[in-house]
Amino acid sequence: MSRTTATLLISCPDQRGLVYKIANFIYANGGNIVHADQHTDFTAGLFLTRIEWELNGFNLPRELVGPAFNAIAQPLGAKWELHFSDTVRRMAIWVSKQDHCLLDLLWRQRAGEFAAEIPLIISNHPDLESTAKQFGIHFAHLPITKENKAEQEAQQHVLLKEHKIDLVVLAKYMQILSADFVAQFGRVINIHHSFLPAFVGANPYQQAYQRGVKLIGATAHYVTADLDEGPIIEQEVARVSHRDDVPTLVRKGKDLERMVLARAVRTHLQNRVLVYGARTVVFE
Amino acid sequence: MSRTTATLLISCPDQRGLVYKIANFIYANGGNIVHADQHTDFTAGLFLTRIEWELNGFNLPRELVGPAFNAIAQPLGAKWELHFSDTVRRMAIWVSKQDHCLLDLLWRQRAGEFAAEIPLIISNHPDLESTAKQFGIHFAHLPITKENKAEQEAQQHVLLKEHKIDLVVLAKYMQILSADFVAQFGRVINIHHSFLPAFVGANPYQQAYQRGVKLIGATAHYVTADLDEGPIIEQEVARVSHRDDVPTLVRKGKDLERMVLARAVRTHLQNRVLVYGARTVVFE
Amino acid sequence: MSRTTATLLISCPDQRGLVYKIANFIYANGGNIVHADQHTDFTAGLFLTRIEWELNGFNLPRELVGPAFNAIAQPLGAKWELHFSDTVRRMAIWVSKQDHCLLDLLWRQRAGEFAAEIPLIISNHPDLESTAKQFGIHFAHLPITKENKAEQEAQQHVLLKEHKIDLVVLAKYMQILSADFVAQFGRVINIHHSFLPAFVGANPYQQAYQRGVKLIGATAHYVTADLDEGPIIEQEVARVSHRDDVPTLVRKGKDLERMVLARAVRTHLQNRVLVYGARTVVFE
Amino acid sequence: MSRTTATLLISCPDQRGLVYKIANFIYANGGNIVHADQHTDFTAGLFLTRIEWELNGFNLPRELVGPAFNAIAQPLGAKWELHFSDTVRRMAIWVSKQDHCLLDLLWRQRAGEFAAEIPLIISNHPDLESTAKQFGIHFAHLPITKENKAEQEAQQHVLLKEHKIDLVVLAKYMQILSADFVAQFGRVINIHHSFLPAFVGANPYQQAYQRGVKLIGATAHYVTADLDEGPIIEQEVARVSHRDDVPTLVRKGKDLERMVLARAVRTHLQNRVLVYGARTVVFE
Repeated sequence: MSRTTATLLISCPDQRGLVYKIANFIYANGGNIVHADQHTDFTAGLFLTRIEWELNGFNLPRELVGPAFNAIAQPLGAKWELHFSDTVRRMAIWVSKQDHCLLDLLWRQRAGEFAAEIPLIISNHPDLESTAKQFGIHFAHLPITKENKAEQEAQQHVLLKEHKIDLVVLAKYMQILSADFVAQFGRVINIHHSFLPAFVGANPYQQAYQRGVKLIGATAHYVTADLDEGPIIEQEVARVSHRDDVPTLVRKGKDLERMVLARAVRTHLQNRVLVYGARTVVFE
Repeated sequence: MSRTTATLLISCPDQRGLVYKIANFIYANGGNIVHADQHTDFTAGLFLTRIEWELNGFNLPRELVGPAFNAIAQPLGAKWELHFSDTVRRMAIWVSKQDHCLLDLLWRQRAGEFAAEIPLIISNHPDLESTAKQFGIHFAHLPITKENKAEQEAQQHVLLKEHKIDLVVLAKYMQILSADFVAQFGRVINIHHSFLPAFVGANPYQQAYQRGVKLIGATAHYVTADLDEGPIIEQEVARVSHRDDVPTLVRKGKDLERMVLARAVRTHLQNRVLVYGARTVVFE
Repeated sequence: MSRTTATLLISCPDQRGLVYKIANFIYANGGNIVHADQHTDFTAGLFLTRIEWELNGFNLPRELVGPAFNAIAQPLGAKWELHFSDTVRRMAIWVSKQDHCLLDLLWRQRAGEFAAEIPLIISNHPDLESTAKQFGIHFAHLPITKENKAEQEAQQHVLLKEHKIDLVVLAKYMQILSADFVAQFGRVINIHHSFLPAFVGANPYQQAYQRGVKLIGATAHYVTADLDEGPIIEQEVARVSHRDDVPTLVRKGKDLERMVLARAVRTHLQNRVLVYGARTVVFE
Repeated sequence: MSRTTATLLISCPDQRGLVYKIANFIYANGGNIVHADQHTDFTAGLFLTRIEWELNGFNLPRELVGPAFNAIAQPLGAKWELHFSDTVRRMAIWVSKQDHCLLDLLWRQRAGEFAAEIPLIISNHPDLESTAKQFGIHFAHLPITKENKAEQEAQQHVLLKEHKIDLVVLAKYMQILSADFVAQFGRVINIHHSFLPAFVGANPYQQAYQRGVKLIGATAHYVTADLDEGPIIEQEVARVSHRDDVPTLVRKGKDLERMVLARAVRTHLQNRVLVYGARTVVFE
């Protein structure tokens, strides 16, 4: 478990010999594959794969792995990402007033469940500053109004750069990011408090109550310019009944939200998610 | 289990003394309560209850139970239904071409899971006639076109009367009932092949695939004039992944559909469902 | 939701008129029932019920409710408990080294999910003292050895009395309570890290791995003198696969454990659990 | 979906270059890989993989694929199985009196869910003969007593050979196969009516009721000489409550049993299960 590995996430037009060419690249350089999984989407004509190998004994120095693999990927028309398991990712958590997802992520990080540091919390409300302090994390209070939104987003960008953030997690951040922001900063995971595509928009638990559903859900997805339409990473549901009023649905939903968000963040940090179009491949 | 019981399903504006008055009615007449459950919807100001008692030793003859209870219900402004456990309900199953829900219901009926007879199957296609024959059930083939819909619905009404049908189960009947039909014949349960309100309308599995959801669902509901908007009785979901193409989603969905529909039908037949507004109380 | 209520949990040999007699007691004294549920165990010949009513408008002063009801209960041979919703229960949490269940309970208490105070944490290890301090809770470090166990249990009793504890929650307390202790202090809830009765005893995740199960579970139960045999309050499972090594099973198990323990504690605090024999009725 | 493929299931001591060598074998012969998944069990030092490729365009004739691969497998110390997707497996279903699993398998086979024929049903009771007839399947009634067991098993062997059976599915066959039988005929899948290892042996639903569990389960596993100890293929659970008496547990259990057994059979027929030691890898 503690051996350092490299991971390639590759998507590529389907063609003969892909597994061989990738495996050959690793074998020829002395690598030992510890995980390899692939998926062929026949409808899209796409080959998608995740391959992970031990760096111990691998002949190429780290800085050359990417360029060397690119020489193979280019002719195949492949898109790819390369990650090293000992790179500690830097995660910013964005919140509003609710603390359940934030606390859950902080505990899990402290318990070693995430290969990531959390140097920055951003909020449009001051409420969770003391929590940030308690965990020794920088807390930036950036209230959002219609008027100052562009300005505050610029400030958010500065903070993300300053803290070298790789991943933004919207942990019940009740503001919509502008399309510009999303275009500029790619990796944002959001938790939506419903089983998307049911109950998009505001007050999903109120909507769920009125519709009389027998299950409620939560959805973690990457954020795109289309609100609530980003590629889904993880979903889960819980059983509810006529006895559950809206506050009870909210309480049950909180458990779903933190569970689903944590799973999505962990999977992302383990480089197990490959986005293509509006969908994701989540390699087990 | 085999003792004959009477069951009252009551909904009533909330007020002091309701449990007492209902319990007193049964006790004073020598009844032994075997199940009593209630729910107060404080938002709607409604008291909803299900109460079941043994007829053995009950002083009122069956035909007087209703009138006698009405004398109590009237002043309370209560709506109520009365059912006897030895009444064998008569169920018509409506299908199109797919047989999975039909077969499941037929097998469960034969296995004694439903206190109901199934004397009639109606279909807009001829495909499942042999299945009907094999189980000794009358099969009516009534193809539907835009032109003949009203006429065929009239014919359906005749058949329901002729066979003394209490409950219609749409077991993948791929036609929409007219508002008129629904207004005339009250008790219709439908299985919808999605986790409502997600993916209303046609081709839900195709929609689910394109949206890249990680769970698919099925919903059993009473049919109302508003398509896909009737009160939900039961829902269930199953996990899916990027590996599941549309045919696999359909296959997994079939398992959900038959499970969810069977649960809804059983619950209905056990007089455990009370509809109020767009919602249901399902008494456990 | 915020109205003060009284709740009776009653178990009683089954007989005619029980619902009436109990409802009459409440109605005659001007009470408004907000929840009533019952279960008849025909095998055991037992009637079990939970009934909750608003104290606002109830004619009996609190201190007389018990004695008055006893006059009814006695002739019926009923056992009963009476609870008032504004009584804030006092909970002690016992831990060893792992903090996931503890933190979850503390967070839920702070979030208002439990009608309880947590004045005391007891541990056989010093590790979680700082967590206790951070939440302003008294932390007692009582290491257990074979030699000092009786002595330390005496000390534990003193602490429970001193802090007026109503409920002990073993939140991954890796010591076995003596039969004496359990006999003296009735209400103890434990979380067992398996789907009981599978994998009793030590190292259940190791056992689960070796057996190659496809689901792992957690069980919350009342503690009795028979280890791992107490009445079960709640259970839940999670899917695992061949990819999950023992540390991953442990991580997944932690999520189950805190979820299941929290549900059991909440249900208990809401006076929804009635123990009879080795089983529980959990009123919804 | 309808393209013919070959599948290799391989287990092998872990070593560098395995993926490369296998991929090379397929690529060098012009194969197009459509599924490849692997698992490394670091504790056991084992590499386990499933690799599936299209035969269309593959240079080796079928009869040479095995021998050619063996030349590669031998030096690696690998165990392997080779399957072709257009081989229609032949499945015998063994039953006693209950028909729910049998009917479910028959429906699914007819619906095209299994790439298999079902030419033979064996039972120790005559009850399900008419079901067999209805589906046009040979039914062999072989009652078992202590005295005739060896003899009847010999007869079973004859039938399996006669009908060229590849897989035996015990679909609620309430007899224990002898160790001899299991040693001689390898591939037997059983459905056990509990969440193993809980409630081994007889009357698991009665046991579950008495223990007061909140979930019941079912387990599909390969049969080995150790009763209830064979490698698990699939498990599932369903929620139960104090309201569920033993007959209701049995009814809920039947739904679990047929679902779990069907999943296990399908996965086996798709060559997705690799047994090693007491565990299985189920490739998704």
